[in-house]
Amino acid sequence: MRNCKRELRINKEKMSKLERLFKPRKIAIVGASEETGKIGRVLVDNITKLGYSGEVFFVNPKHQELFGKKCYAKLSEIEGEVDLAIISVPAKFVPEVVQEGASKVKNFVIISAGFSEVSAEGKKREDALLQFAQEHDLNILGPNCLGFIVPNMKLNASFAGGMPEAGNVAFVSQSGALAVAIMDIARKDNIKFSHIISVGNKMQIDETELLEFLDKDEKTKVIAMYLEGIKDGKRFIETARGISKPIVILKAGKTEKSQKAISSHTGALAGSDEIMTTIFDQTGVLRAENLEEFFSLIKLISNIEVPKNSGVAVITNAGGPGVLTTDAFRGMKIELVNLAPEEKDKLRAFLPEESSVENPIDLLGDAGEERYEKALNVLEEIDGVGSIFCVLTPQDQTPVDKIADKIIAFGEKTDKNVATIFIGGERVEAAIEKLKDSAITNFMFPDQAVKTLNDYFAWGARKQDKKDILLAEVDAERKKKVLDLIEKAKEEGRTALFFSEASRAMALYGVKCINIWGEADLTNIQYPVVVKVDSDKVLHKTDKQGLILGIKSEEELLKSIGIIKNNFPGENFIIQPMLERKTEIIVGIKDDSIFGPIVVFGLGGIYTEVFKMVDFLLPAFNKASIREKIMNSKIQFLFQETRGQKAYDLEGMVDILYGISFLAHEIPEIKEFDINPILIYNDGRGAIAVDVKIVI
Amino acid sequence: MRNCKRELRINKEKMSKLERLFKPRKIAIVGASEETGKIGRVLVDNITKLGYSGEVFFVNPKHQELFGKKCYAKLSEIEGEVDLAIISVPAKFVPEVVQEGASKVKNFVIISAGFSEVSAEGKKREDALLQFAQEHDLNILGPNCLGFIVPNMKLNASFAGGMPEAGNVAFVSQSGALAVAIMDIARKDNIKFSHIISVGNKMQIDETELLEFLDKDEKTKVIAMYLEGIKDGKRFIETARGISKPIVILKAGKTEKSQKAISSHTGALAGSDEIMTTIFDQTGVLRAENLEEFFSLIKLISNIEVPKNSGVAVITNAGGPGVLTTDAFRGMKIELVNLAPEEKDKLRAFLPEESSVENPIDLLGDAGEERYEKALNVLEEIDGVGSIFCVLTPQDQTPVDKIADKIIAFGEKTDKNVATIFIGGERVEAAIEKLKDSAITNFMFPDQAVKTLNDYFAWGARKQDKKDILLAEVDAERKKKVLDLIEKAKEEGRTALFFSEASRAMALYGVKCINIWGEADLTNIQYPVVVKVDSDKVLHKTDKQGLILGIKSEEELLKSIGIIKNNFPGENFIIQPMLERKTEIIVGIKDDSIFGPIVVFGLGGIYTEVFKMVDFLLPAFNKASIREKIMNSKIQFLFQETRGQKAYDLEGMVDILYGISFLAHEIPEIKEFDINPILIYNDGRGAIAVDVKIVI
Repeated sequence: MRNCKRELRINKEKMSKLERLFKPRKIAIVGASEETGKIGRVLVDNITKLGYSGEVFFVNPKHQELFGKKCYAKLSEIEGEVDLAIISVPAKFVPEVVQEGASKVKNFVIISAGFSEVSAEGKKREDALLQFAQEHDLNILGPNCLGFIVPNMKLNASFAGGMPEAGNVAFVSQSGALAVAIMDIARKDNIKFSHIISVGNKMQIDETELLEFLDKDEKTKVIAMYLEGIKDGKRFIETARGISKPIVILKAGKTEKSQKAISSHTGALAGSDEIMTTIFDQTGVLRAENLEEFFSLIKLISNIEVPKNSGVAVITNAGGPGVLTTDAFRGMKIELVNLAPEEKDKLRAFLPEESSVENPIDLLGDAGEERYEKALNVLEEIDGVGSIFCVLTPQDQTPVDKIADKIIAFGEKTDKNVATIFIGGERVEAAIEKLKDSAITNFMFPDQAVKTLNDYFAWGARKQDKKDILLAEVDAERKKKVLDLIEKAKEEGRTALFFSEASRAMALYGVKCINIWGEADLTNIQYPVVVKVDSDKVLHKTDKQGLILGIKSEEELLKSIGIIKNNFPGENFIIQPMLERKTEIIVGIKDDSIFGPIVVFGLGGIYTEVFKMVDFLLPAFNKASIREKIMNSKIQFLFQETRGQKAYDLEGMVDILYGISFLAHEIPEIKEFDINPILIYNDGRGAIAVDVKIVI
Repeated sequence: MRNCKRELRINKEKMSKLERLFKPRKIAIVGASEETGKIGRVLVDNITKLGYSGEVFFVNPKHQELFGKKCYAKLSEIEGEVDLAIISVPAKFVPEVVQEGASKVKNFVIISAGFSEVSAEGKKREDALLQFAQEHDLNILGPNCLGFIVPNMKLNASFAGGMPEAGNVAFVSQSGALAVAIMDIARKDNIKFSHIISVGNKMQIDETELLEFLDKDEKTKVIAMYLEGIKDGKRFIETARGISKPIVILKAGKTEKSQKAISSHTGALAGSDEIMTTIFDQTGVLRAENLEEFFSLIKLISNIEVPKNSGVAVITNAGGPGVLTTDAFRGMKIELVNLAPEEKDKLRAFLPEESSVENPIDLLGDAGEERYEKALNVLEEIDGVGSIFCVLTPQDQTPVDKIADKIIAFGEKTDKNVATIFIGGERVEAAIEKLKDSAITNFMFPDQAVKTLNDYFAWGARKQDKKDILLAEVDAERKKKVLDLIEKAKEEGRTALFFSEASRAMALYGVKCINIWGEADLTNIQYPVVVKVDSDKVLHKTDKQGLILGIKSEEELLKSIGIIKNNFPGENFIIQPMLERKTEIIVGIKDDSIFGPIVVFGLGGIYTEVFKMVDFLLPAFNKASIREKIMNSKIQFLFQETRGQKAYDLEGMVDILYGISFLAHEIPEIKEFDINPILIYNDGRGAIAVDVKIVI
């Protein structure tokens, strides 16, 4: 995160090169072959026979001619410039090919497998290749990848067959097989692509660089990625935050077992799944939970804009499916709009008496296309309705095709989002084809439809909130004060700050700590108090009787101090007031191996371990965004008035997380940090940190 | 529940009649017509043109002949017996038709709408019809229904077109439109039916009677139902408990909004959704959360037996989909089996080096049918593998059809469950068709596959547990003792028991209550104590200062008693020891309008309202089943050793719920019951009820 400005600059320089890589006018195929079944042959066929209009060169030292055309022994022999070289030769020859060709061509796609994914030797080969690429300013996609496809150029620079339709979905895949399967499903589902890019081992070009590139690409409306790991977490965060296009990511590897499957598969670092979700949420990425959601999101988003409000209307020709659709709204942020009496009257004006003019609007089983059309026209006038689902079951008297036509016509003229839920098989097939061609998304089942629209809407709302998030400047003065404390502790041979020091550091970040007294203050103490040892050498205070609670008099206190001194000779101790422990919060910083420091917060107290009511926060420097995060966290209930309980101080909690975000950002020198507990109250007493651990 | 024996007997008598209804040899169509578009015409066509071999009579007073055959004016005019009359005449004429025909025919399907679903007048008509039916021992399906279809008799006694394939799925639908849609989807998905039955208003024949009938039906393997309400909850419970076939129910109406949509739709009483889930769980019903799950469950269950163990193996030709499949196992009861070293060796023997022999077993992208076959043969020998998923993505070199053939062949010889996840579009279509024809279920996505198999397995395990659940005998002596207490309180004009009385009642059901002292015991009291008013007139004790805590001496106690007496002149009060409140449980009985008494239990204390950690228990008279319920409840964490916490006494909790189950069963006279709190400890102190409310 800290070096992001430099990195962003580098990305910009690279961008034009990626453009040349993905829009090449001249392509060399290294390892081109006439032999059927060889990848070199498939590449030639895909590039030359599917409509690509650029120039193609064959490179293969074994041939002087291929397909009746000149074949070069080396890349360097080709006359004039080459935009892109696609390499499909055995892994051991790849370095040589790249080195030899580097003077002629800067962009490579390495199809060949046999690198870091197979063995230590392969890893060494890949590392050396990367170093060469960096030194010579090359751009390499792969190795161990399928290649890429740009349908609007009719360019299939991959060894997967076929040419998908040109459209607005960019699909980046860390699994070649999945890319092939998705292209096959897409054909059926009418998903159209701007790019399909297989990233393979992500040696050099990774998801983040592709995000940058695809964000600038005019043809791309939605960026869809299947990922098994994020290569550079900090750079990913900065890049994703800055992108306004929808990014849909299917991130595999949710469990230990699947992470194991990944490591035997491509060796990607999978990362903690919950933190991944936090990062995606806070950077405006739509996370698909599974392959089905991934498709649903891609389909819908490629067809519609973000719903302009949360209001949805449902029209149906069948009661049961209407009820099932209503059920699907449970727990969603989008909602069924309540229709006003005059709006219901407009519906009643043309509907039979037995119809329901509540939302879902039941047009009845004998509804023809006119009822759908008229109902849609009534809804068109209602501002609160941002989206409309048209549900249909093919009853014997249902003119399915004509209804589809009316919906398509309405979809063309309205600003609202329209999607359909045509439930059936053969009887609805033709109509669904029509709908697809008109960019109206059909869902087979109500739950998919509602969940997908909801996710898109929620993403839009979050993205809006994120617009004003900027990177924080470091407060150098404050930082120096904390570093001085750390320096002093280190000089004294300690690995942690004393509570008094930690307390001073916390004050700089707006977190109030509990008072402490020392031995000198005995006459000023207000009882009851606790005594505890304050030392980096004593981690679990209660285990070794380093903590004595409920001390009510000076006599007891002196006795307790004696015990502590006896248990921990030569160690520091502190005296604190014994506060009422009603509700306890814990806050900490976790240093994630992929994404860097992440703030952790949750409920403390006896059930901490059991309820696991903990959330993660990517350090945020914007109070509105922290507030929203808290109100969507597991402890949001504390900040809402509930039966028998006044709300706790939300702004106090916001200030704490704001402060700790800055701490995480400014002082990477801290190795471990947590406050456990912070006592919070809902009677005006505010929040107070009782124990702060700063390991250095 | 209480009258179930009598009712079960009645059901048995009815059964043979339902058999006659659904296997009629002679059918009369009342309202038969030659006019195209009329339901009477559709019925004639469906019954006479789709292969039904029984005798058909037309009844319509307006005609003497229809389709060149005699047409009767009345049912009674038909010579000989009639098994079934299907009525499609305007609602107002229906009662007349039934009354007139009752001497000739006992079984009716009333297609006509215009009854309780439309108006108060319609409701009256339906009530009268039901009374007549009961008095004359008739069986009526409907009114306001689609009819029914029995494919293996080629009998379509409905106004939905077509003849589904004959198979083992019985589908009962409370929505006619959904039945039509499902038949249409089923055609595509190769789902085959023993019966399709539209129940309409469920005036007389309801889901429970159909459960009984379909359980006995030899052709039916799985009973699938779309329901918007359960008509007779207690009868449903008893019947469902006794059925060993899988029952899959899609129960609509999860939210208030959808219940509203239902009431405007068929007027079914939707019921509390969470209780519905409890009932389904405890009676061995598989609840489908949505239409997609419903289909997946029906498809899979119609093809396979319950998995014999939780072990699953996955073989795949692509890493990415393998990882996604692994992800799908998160939180499931089925699990990926760990392969033994010698099993891995067997796989290594024929797989390329880069393959993964962990589970999922990655056969690599160039896998042909032999690798699938050999891998399956290795798995066949592993007892811990109860089920196998074959994942496939159609890569260019993948012989999809041949692989399908090998899987089909393996499926025919193995005892293990085999299902496929062929991910793709056109390239896998033909193979999927083959698989369908061979009763191998294909899922389009890994998550569906894993979730569906898991639900089936979990159902099987639950069903096994349920086998020894019997109805409890009432303990008449105990019952009398409690009734005496209630009687006495009523005589004294009270609406609730005193704590001392409630405490005695609780002792009879094995729940230990806290000691109490009265004014007379002052000298024996051990402090600290609490004083509280004990009266049916004071519901919220704390609001009116009816509860004083932390009394440490006799002086304080006398003062406190004075306050209470002053606040509540003439009321009873009690003195209790003040116990340490570490963990609190609440237990109560909810009288559900559909299912009768339901035991409620959960976490008490400050977060009761917030965490809503409450579960429901259908009164259970079997400790094993209660134990299992607790260990699957929201408070199961209390009964497991966790970091920093010893486990609480599970058997103590089982005893309490066992006792309260009997209380709910034996004393329906109790109007409201709860214990709040029961204090529980994990240091051998056991559980103790502090406050018991018994409203009579």
